[in-house]
Amino acid sequence: MSQSPDRPLPTFSARETFFGTDKTGDAAISIAGVPMDIATTNRAGARDGPAAVRRASRMAGGTYPDLWPDLYSLDFADVGNFSLMMGKLEESLALIERQALEHDHLISVGGDHLVTLPLLRAAAKKHGAPLGLVHFDAHVDTWDENYGVPVTHGTNFRIAINEGLVDPKRMIQIGIRCRVEPEVWQWTLDQGVTIITAEEVHMGNPADVAARIHQVVGNQDKTYLTFDIDCLDPSCAPGTGTPETGGLLAWQARSILTRLGGINFIGMDVVEVAPAYDVGEITALNGASVMAFYMGLLAASKSQAE
Amino acid sequence: MSQSPDRPLPTFSARETFFGTDKTGDAAISIAGVPMDIATTNRAGARDGPAAVRRASRMAGGTYPDLWPDLYSLDFADVGNFSLMMGKLEESLALIERQALEHDHLISVGGDHLVTLPLLRAAAKKHGAPLGLVHFDAHVDTWDENYGVPVTHGTNFRIAINEGLVDPKRMIQIGIRCRVEPEVWQWTLDQGVTIITAEEVHMGNPADVAARIHQVVGNQDKTYLTFDIDCLDPSCAPGTGTPETGGLLAWQARSILTRLGGINFIGMDVVEVAPAYDVGEITALNGASVMAFYMGLLAASKSQAE
Amino acid sequence: MSQSPDRPLPTFSARETFFGTDKTGDAAISIAGVPMDIATTNRAGARDGPAAVRRASRMAGGTYPDLWPDLYSLDFADVGNFSLMMGKLEESLALIERQALEHDHLISVGGDHLVTLPLLRAAAKKHGAPLGLVHFDAHVDTWDENYGVPVTHGTNFRIAINEGLVDPKRMIQIGIRCRVEPEVWQWTLDQGVTIITAEEVHMGNPADVAARIHQVVGNQDKTYLTFDIDCLDPSCAPGTGTPETGGLLAWQARSILTRLGGINFIGMDVVEVAPAYDVGEITALNGASVMAFYMGLLAASKSQAE
Amino acid sequence: MSQSPDRPLPTFSARETFFGTDKTGDAAISIAGVPMDIATTNRAGARDGPAAVRRASRMAGGTYPDLWPDLYSLDFADVGNFSLMMGKLEESLALIERQALEHDHLISVGGDHLVTLPLLRAAAKKHGAPLGLVHFDAHVDTWDENYGVPVTHGTNFRIAINEGLVDPKRMIQIGIRCRVEPEVWQWTLDQGVTIITAEEVHMGNPADVAARIHQVVGNQDKTYLTFDIDCLDPSCAPGTGTPETGGLLAWQARSILTRLGGINFIGMDVVEVAPAYDVGEITALNGASVMAFYMGLLAASKSQAE
Amino acid sequence: MSQSPDRPLPTFSARETFFGTDKTGDAAISIAGVPMDIATTNRAGARDGPAAVRRASRMAGGTYPDLWPDLYSLDFADVGNFSLMMGKLEESLALIERQALEHDHLISVGGDHLVTLPLLRAAAKKHGAPLGLVHFDAHVDTWDENYGVPVTHGTNFRIAINEGLVDPKRMIQIGIRCRVEPEVWQWTLDQGVTIITAEEVHMGNPADVAARIHQVVGNQDKTYLTFDIDCLDPSCAPGTGTPETGGLLAWQARSILTRLGGINFIGMDVVEVAPAYDVGEITALNGASVMAFYMGLLAASKSQAE
Amino acid sequence: MSQSPDRPLPTFSARETFFGTDKTGDAAISIAGVPMDIATTNRAGARDGPAAVRRASRMAGGTYPDLWPDLYSLDFADVGNFSLMMGKLEESLALIERQALEHDHLISVGGDHLVTLPLLRAAAKKHGAPLGLVHFDAHVDTWDENYGVPVTHGTNFRIAINEGLVDPKRMIQIGIRCRVEPEVWQWTLDQGVTIITAEEVHMGNPADVAARIHQVVGNQDKTYLTFDIDCLDPSCAPGTGTPETGGLLAWQARSILTRLGGINFIGMDVVEVAPAYDVGEITALNGASVMAFYMGLLAASKSQAE
Repeated sequence: MSQSPDRPLPTFSARETFFGTDKTGDAAISIAGVPMDIATTNRAGARDGPAAVRRASRMAGGTYPDLWPDLYSLDFADVGNFSLMMGKLEESLALIERQALEHDHLISVGGDHLVTLPLLRAAAKKHGAPLGLVHFDAHVDTWDENYGVPVTHGTNFRIAINEGLVDPKRMIQIGIRCRVEPEVWQWTLDQGVTIITAEEVHMGNPADVAARIHQVVGNQDKTYLTFDIDCLDPSCAPGTGTPETGGLLAWQARSILTRLGGINFIGMDVVEVAPAYDVGEITALNGASVMAFYMGLLAASKSQAE
Repeated sequence: MSQSPDRPLPTFSARETFFGTDKTGDAAISIAGVPMDIATTNRAGARDGPAAVRRASRMAGGTYPDLWPDLYSLDFADVGNFSLMMGKLEESLALIERQALEHDHLISVGGDHLVTLPLLRAAAKKHGAPLGLVHFDAHVDTWDENYGVPVTHGTNFRIAINEGLVDPKRMIQIGIRCRVEPEVWQWTLDQGVTIITAEEVHMGNPADVAARIHQVVGNQDKTYLTFDIDCLDPSCAPGTGTPETGGLLAWQARSILTRLGGINFIGMDVVEVAPAYDVGEITALNGASVMAFYMGLLAASKSQAE
Repeated sequence: MSQSPDRPLPTFSARETFFGTDKTGDAAISIAGVPMDIATTNRAGARDGPAAVRRASRMAGGTYPDLWPDLYSLDFADVGNFSLMMGKLEESLALIERQALEHDHLISVGGDHLVTLPLLRAAAKKHGAPLGLVHFDAHVDTWDENYGVPVTHGTNFRIAINEGLVDPKRMIQIGIRCRVEPEVWQWTLDQGVTIITAEEVHMGNPADVAARIHQVVGNQDKTYLTFDIDCLDPSCAPGTGTPETGGLLAWQARSILTRLGGINFIGMDVVEVAPAYDVGEITALNGASVMAFYMGLLAASKSQAE
Repeated sequence: MSQSPDRPLPTFSARETFFGTDKTGDAAISIAGVPMDIATTNRAGARDGPAAVRRASRMAGGTYPDLWPDLYSLDFADVGNFSLMMGKLEESLALIERQALEHDHLISVGGDHLVTLPLLRAAAKKHGAPLGLVHFDAHVDTWDENYGVPVTHGTNFRIAINEGLVDPKRMIQIGIRCRVEPEVWQWTLDQGVTIITAEEVHMGNPADVAARIHQVVGNQDKTYLTFDIDCLDPSCAPGTGTPETGGLLAWQARSILTRLGGINFIGMDVVEVAPAYDVGEITALNGASVMAFYMGLLAASKSQAE
Repeated sequence: MSQSPDRPLPTFSARETFFGTDKTGDAAISIAGVPMDIATTNRAGARDGPAAVRRASRMAGGTYPDLWPDLYSLDFADVGNFSLMMGKLEESLALIERQALEHDHLISVGGDHLVTLPLLRAAAKKHGAPLGLVHFDAHVDTWDENYGVPVTHGTNFRIAINEGLVDPKRMIQIGIRCRVEPEVWQWTLDQGVTIITAEEVHMGNPADVAARIHQVVGNQDKTYLTFDIDCLDPSCAPGTGTPETGGLLAWQARSILTRLGGINFIGMDVVEVAPAYDVGEITALNGASVMAFYMGLLAASKSQAE
Repeated sequence: MSQSPDRPLPTFSARETFFGTDKTGDAAISIAGVPMDIATTNRAGARDGPAAVRRASRMAGGTYPDLWPDLYSLDFADVGNFSLMMGKLEESLALIERQALEHDHLISVGGDHLVTLPLLRAAAKKHGAPLGLVHFDAHVDTWDENYGVPVTHGTNFRIAINEGLVDPKRMIQIGIRCRVEPEVWQWTLDQGVTIITAEEVHMGNPADVAARIHQVVGNQDKTYLTFDIDCLDPSCAPGTGTPETGGLLAWQARSILTRLGGINFIGMDVVEVAPAYDVGEITALNGASVMAFYMGLLAASKSQAE
């Protein structure tokens, strides 16, 4: 219900860009859609995630009672959607990486979770590998293959670890509760990845989870945030491809995220928003809120630096 | 699944009035629909809230295991929907106030939250100003304007305070988590309003929240209850115009409300139910349940007085 | 499935502007959203029409087998949504008119049908009154009042006729089948308006209807086209506020529209798309198609002039 | 968009009774809901038909351009929903018949098509058997059993014929296109029933169909009208239990019905509206429109008699 | 995202049987659909529950991080749907019981909750009466009648207790929060049934609830599990017939169920999944997850026995 | 509502296989799902088409009043879904072709329209190239590339023609109305393909269209039928990826198809059913009906041969 100076239109009249911005390029922060969804193992449609999150983000930008600086204090642009090769996985991954390299601090909206792989490849090139990783998800995404296919939205982080893009000792997964073979689970732990299951979040306290995240990734070294919307419970995020029951509630994600101030974030993404299965835009709104919280952290950091 | 003596029809066959009543006037308690929704900043459609809540209320009336007297022990009527002037805000506010004055104890279903303003004006005339206010909401609704417009569903309580309808020191807001400019936030606190954010509810305990409400409004002086359905999390209430993530869960609202016995309530409303965005009637059912809990409090109070 | 040279992105990756254009101003043709919907007598939500039609229009631009010149041969821009005063009807009408005057050839997407009134006022000022009017609708929209209110989405054309914006003898309504009082019906005929009921369209032939339109408005004098999406049958356009059974099928509208070449159109609008009631975007797609057919007529006319 | 003198509220504010009436009894014409749906062979939910049609009927009452007398010229009441025994078929049929006998001219909204059987039993008792029958449907409903059960929504008219409630020589079915065993088809024809398939309607002309109906049932003897909403194409009536592709379009039903003036109708029903599968209320609206056309015929007949 | 050896197809390509099995008979565990829904007091459609849960179950089978043995280590079959007599309650109950007797360890998906009555009758015959009962539900289901009908989905457990199928002292209800007459409540307690209300679950801890269940039913004697999906909050399970606000969250049900290892379960059912009111399959997925957790308990038990 | 001897279960209880068959292999006719949808240019989700059509087909099998032999007179099996490589287009095409070769007469349900390419490759190998092609579609699908990609659901028939799988002189397209570049249009005509636009169908008569099909493909040589569900109007088939307004109505498709008796069909497919955008299963039901009509033609042909 709040408004920034450059948004005099009511929400319903605002342009459907990320947070209603009119800026389309040349900004400190670039927000892009990455509508690739051909690597999903179950329901399709994450290609429509960027549009849905754009629309919902008009309801999400501003200052929150936690009194952050306004996210509109940041210099950001909606750079549109990335180009893709329809039906061509490898070519699309290369295209995504190439386009991601054109931006300094990139916030992306998927697309399925495989898009994070080329985004991490680009981030590692830009910012130096390996990166820390804060990873919200229902699924570990460290399979060695899914149904006979080695590059999917379930193998992305095994590849990222194997390529040295991510430091598994500075990698933490929050919200995990998927079916998973014991050897995949063990491999993940063996790399040094920290896993906080959804039940641990429910039984515990968001502040403690946030403290654990700070502990794992540190505030010094560069860190990437990836938020698979299916880390939320299907009641909060029905609009996704592989929902799992028992997930985080929206308030828990919010309370954890807003306590991550000080981490040296160099990029983030929200993935797996599939609006065809959503109701009342609530999944998209959760995606947009996550972006707003992340941008609030950046705004606070910028404000402290000034 | 329970039934009152005058409702021998299965739920699916019951007349779609509030709690299935056949009474249309001349009762101690009047329940009315107020289908005005032209003051919303985002999604439209709260005009259809009264019908949806009527329908859902057939599933909500009766005695709960907390062993209240049956709400059917109250003398209440469904007085229908209020008249409005389409597209005419000021005229409609005047019409709503005038119609509200015809009823002693009025329970209303909006419409957008601006309908509470004329309802408070009428209540203040009937019952004496200023009133205490228990206000469930995601939004403070104390803006001085929204997008250049001074009378909207986001400025209603600033106006109510400024008009002296409500005593801000006896006003408490529960569930707040909206974007809000620091000066609006500060103005609200400066008036003496008590704010309990959604995170405070989640981190705490419904019994403590209820105790805080008792403390702020007291049990002696007259108090009005307004329940914006968007105080609930979008997972519980997708059918609303300006959803905000991270809200109260249905059980929390229920556990708080059922602990408000003894407060001297003289009227209440449920607002911002927009069924076009709902699924499986769950938003409407939450609206109806809130009414049922309020009426349960009245029934208990009546039973104790007898 | 076709593409213009400046649209190398797959449909699902294209920017959600009208027909995917990147141009936002300074074009021969301006396309705008006019998200006002507070004058509706039944279901709300036409404020979300512009966004839905923008999205759907990405599927509708190009060359059709009828071998029009590509609509991308036109110089057009998506100028965004008009500013409005929430809940303020008269002020909003004035604002719409003022903004419409800034554009030479304006294509608009409503909003409810009342938006056509200020659009006609602006068109009459720009192009000279009275204008011819090709009016697709289920409803005559020539009431003298609706439910006690004189300026609504059902009185707009009586006002337009009374203000001399439209020449009723050069006005033709296609698709009419609403409930209507005999005196309203007679008044409309008495002004000289030609009415083709939906049944007449069904019993006849699109080519004959098109011929009748040519006959009524002529090819010489300036003419405005207004397309209320509820002229279509609810099966084709469920996403609207006041559906009426028995309407035009999409193919009939298409076959009529594509035969209107030569008429001197100076502006058009599509109104009453309310996406909250739509399924699979079909109402929005029909709205976008109607715009594409209109722009195809302009492209053909431009091509012949060259 | 029109209004009767006693309906000064905008559509969205009108009480959700049939055509918005406030009358609940003692009228020349009674309109009732009959929410029984336990005899369906496929999708459930017709029990919610009466509520949906009530709501939609607020958009359907008035005078149409065909210049009928206003249906509000009739004396009619919404008598509510009939009582039923949950899960008890035979008992429910007896209850429906008993309640139907309390009304002179009854218009009913089902419920599944089996409700027509007790309604015909009551009509035959009141008005004398056998009755003529105008039967719109996708299905012949003259099976001798369905899946081993002899009394279902698919055997109702064989029973009605066998009980002598209906004169098969004065019975005509319009819109038939279901799967049907040759012996059931032949039995139906052998009784003397006239069948007009959906394809015959599409290939022909509504006026000719209406003429055939007049010819079969005559204008003298008493006739009942039963309208199974699935006679319409699923595009017009998705909200039903056993949809069949290739059905009548809404305009065809309308054009046929409005040409049935002069037939001596003594009752009618609309059945099989299952709103859980509907979109934008279009199925319910078609149901309400059919009732409005029927009541328009009665109003014309009354007006001619006066 | 995991897979069993015999399921090499991606989730979206897997056959829509329970957990994708190809086995249709002759297994240690039989899974069946019981699509009877004619005993519901409110919304219909649980007949479509089996199909929806089958589909969703393809996403739910495998090993969970709690490191159960894979449910695919069990020998189970999808034996299809049970035969029923449409619209015939007593006959259908007899049919269900007779078919249930053909299976040793039966897992069923309803249908409404009345199906549990014949399932318990069969289980008692097979395994000896009385059985212990773990009963998740919003409703006590111990009414003596509903709306004048003695055998419904709300009277099933009074009948089961009265028939001696269930030992009320070994019966525990979790999640109760319905409207209920004091005498029904008292009768239930008087039999010795343990009731844990939804609020008690929310205010407490899943581990404590699980401990209480163990205490009531014991690990020795035979016990049946019945899970009415409406024990979950409507946000988690909108797709059901009689939703009640304030229910269990999916994670709570999961955390309770996975702590029930050691109980001597001899059968279970999930009932009241009504997909017509669901969104994004979340209700069905919760139903499938509950089955997966139950089967995980069986797999762990089998693994320990080996 | 009819039933075959081996289907004694009510529709809602029948197994969700194609037409409820229990047969899974070794039949004269094989029906398979081909859930590949990664080649779509717009909305995703056709991978869920096979499941939706299976479910709907339970409502579609039997004998129609046109008195075909029962489709259950055919020997057919539901052979399940084909294996695919997720996100791998070329590999998936090879897999589909290989699996198709295992069946003599294959009826397939897509998936997007690209699946027809490997199905034609297999059919040509089995039955000899080139084949005749009856092609229902909104789109010509003879592009040389889409958005820079040469193998998509829009280039499939150019490839098929270029590979000599199809004889363009024996190829007829019905329902075309898409945007298309003049050179693509001309290329198609230049090959000898016959195009009947949707408008030509609307302006003409199904019997004439059927006659034209007979004339083009002949009754002697082998012919394949491919039915893209988007040839239907979006009102009849909202559940598809690239809807186009103005399409065929369900009855027209039915009336054309049932007049194709005598053509020497050796295989067919229904593609582009994307249930996430459907309402009330109507798109899926149209898909199932088309299959039923095709199988009816086979049954008639078999009956005549006997």
